Amino acid sequence: MSTPLHAGLEAHFSALEAFLKEQESAFEPEVRPMVREALAHPGKRLRPLLAFGAGAGGPPTMALVRGAAIVELVHLATLVHDDVLDGADRRHGADTPNRTHGAHAAVLFGDALFAHALVLAAEHTTPELCRIVARASREVCSGEVCQTFSRGDDALSAEAYRRQIQLKTAELFEAACRLGSLLAGRPSEHVESCARFGRHLGIAYQIYDDLADLIQEESKAGKTLGTDVASGKLTLPMILERDLQGPEGVRRLRAGEDPRRAISSAAWRESFRQLDAEIAAAEAALAPAEGSPSPFFLLRLTGFLREAAARLAPL
Amino acid sequence: MSTPLHAGLEAHFSALEAFLKEQESAFEPEVRPMVREALAHPGKRLRPLLAFGAGAGGPPTMALVRGAAIVELVHLATLVHDDVLDGADRRHGADTPNRTHGAHAAVLFGDALFAHALVLAAEHTTPELCRIVARASREVCSGEVCQTFSRGDDALSAEAYRRQIQLKTAELFEAACRLGSLLAGRPSEHVESCARFGRHLGIAYQIYDDLADLIQEESKAGKTLGTDVASGKLTLPMILERDLQGPEGVRRLRAGEDPRRAISSAAWRESFRQLDAEIAAAEAALAPAEGSPSPFFLLRLTGFLREAAARLAPL
Repeated sequence: MSTPLHAGLEAHFSALEAFLKEQESAFEPEVRPMVREALAHPGKRLRPLLAFGAGAGGPPTMALVRGAAIVELVHLATLVHDDVLDGADRRHGADTPNRTHGAHAAVLFGDALFAHALVLAAEHTTPELCRIVARASREVCSGEVCQTFSRGDDALSAEAYRRQIQLKTAELFEAACRLGSLLAGRPSEHVESCARFGRHLGIAYQIYDDLADLIQEESKAGKTLGTDVASGKLTLPMILERDLQGPEGVRRLRAGEDPRRAISSAAWRESFRQLDAEIAAAEAALAPAEGSPSPFFLLRLTGFLREAAARLAPL
Repeated sequence: MSTPLHAGLEAHFSALEAFLKEQESAFEPEVRPMVREALAHPGKRLRPLLAFGAGAGGPPTMALVRGAAIVELVHLATLVHDDVLDGADRRHGADTPNRTHGAHAAVLFGDALFAHALVLAAEHTTPELCRIVARASREVCSGEVCQTFSRGDDALSAEAYRRQIQLKTAELFEAACRLGSLLAGRPSEHVESCARFGRHLGIAYQIYDDLADLIQEESKAGKTLGTDVASGKLTLPMILERDLQGPEGVRRLRAGEDPRRAISSAAWRESFRQLDAEIAAAEAALAPAEGSPSPFFLLRLTGFLREAAARLAPL
């Protein structure tokens, strides 16, 4: 983890990796190789980055490192289950548990990982950490259930889409920011400010991810794209296209036409405008935390997302 | 729930059912029908019975009812995942979430149910309840991973079998007893006594369940039997048969021979002896709680299991 986003948090991230590695021994011997494999090929460690950014200032405390590990373990558990459900063989350049150990062991392993995250949360002196993590996890899974049920629903409203991404992505982003600032002992106004930042950033990030699924070049993404169209999932540009121009664009998209042509420039423009507005809302949310170290670290993320969006823009 | 096992706990169980029903509203509208269906066809509510038995005496408190609901929700979540993994369409006389909503939604729903159990646990004033529930859940899932990996392993030792059933069944039984007595404010010696009871009863119950899978008549069981042989799972009578008489019996069992003939009477006798010993150990564990209401309720369960075992005995 040494990208510009992690600069100044190197000690935090090496403590995190060491802490995650130690967790292996909490599992039964048969399960330990699965834990090792799941941790050996890290993704972006985005949720820990949020926790660390929100709680930044001074050297990493044990409580903050544990908090960052908890949100990462919850995220990893959801990825393990997603990969079973999608029949995915590869993730982060390595075989998935589903591929290596079969769907049966992988579902149960995801459960065990998630339960272990809660064991760690219960080590905190108050039940508040458990409450934050358990609630966010429930919302993430509920959001994924809603999205599953709405596959193939061409009438999905913009509001329903927003609620789904709020649940499946923004809740855990918000939880990561909330627990980061909380564990750093920040005043409650500051905690709420970071939490709001996380919520808006989560929505922005998911809109970005959905846009990328439609228009990024696969060579740059490092993962399979076009999965939303293939699975009958409606995302923001498709919803806006339908609302602005009628159903023809989505139909052409489904028939295999290039998304840049199938979706009108009006719908693209509005998608990017909404993404920008969400990024701006995240930044504005940090105003009450001004003067603390949190904005210094967290605003890098909105900057990064803004640049990534600019590289994506097809217009 | 009005069996002899529930007598004297009627108020507890009606409070439990009302409490469980209320949980529906904590989920997103799309998920609520799944919650309703999962609660509409109750099983034996065995884990709540353990929590109520261990915490019995006086009217049910809110904390105790919530504790009983938590262990039941964790158990339900594991059943939802088991049914996906086994491709099971029916459970407790009703369609499974897997059947009604598909594997995708069912896995995510199981996750959400489990997360909600932890949300409830986090409502307790201390993190102790979260710790007990999260730890037991991790062990249950780890035990199931171990069992999955050992399918088809004809060399599985008696010790490994015992560890697997300790993890997958006894941990949650122990947790139910522990939190029941804890939430009833019992002294720690009493809590540990109930917890030990739960552990031994859990092992006994799983040995019984594995014996029933081999020799009960399907009409009496109300579920599909013979699943262990079919899935390559070695259970106690098969392990003992192999250790006492060699591999021939298990081979004949796999070839379709009646378990009563394929497994020698020596192996059956030893299986039932071990089951009896575990039941006796559960009863002995309650000695320090003597004089409190807990043994009155909990000893019914060992009595019940002893009778069920006697009806099963093929000798």
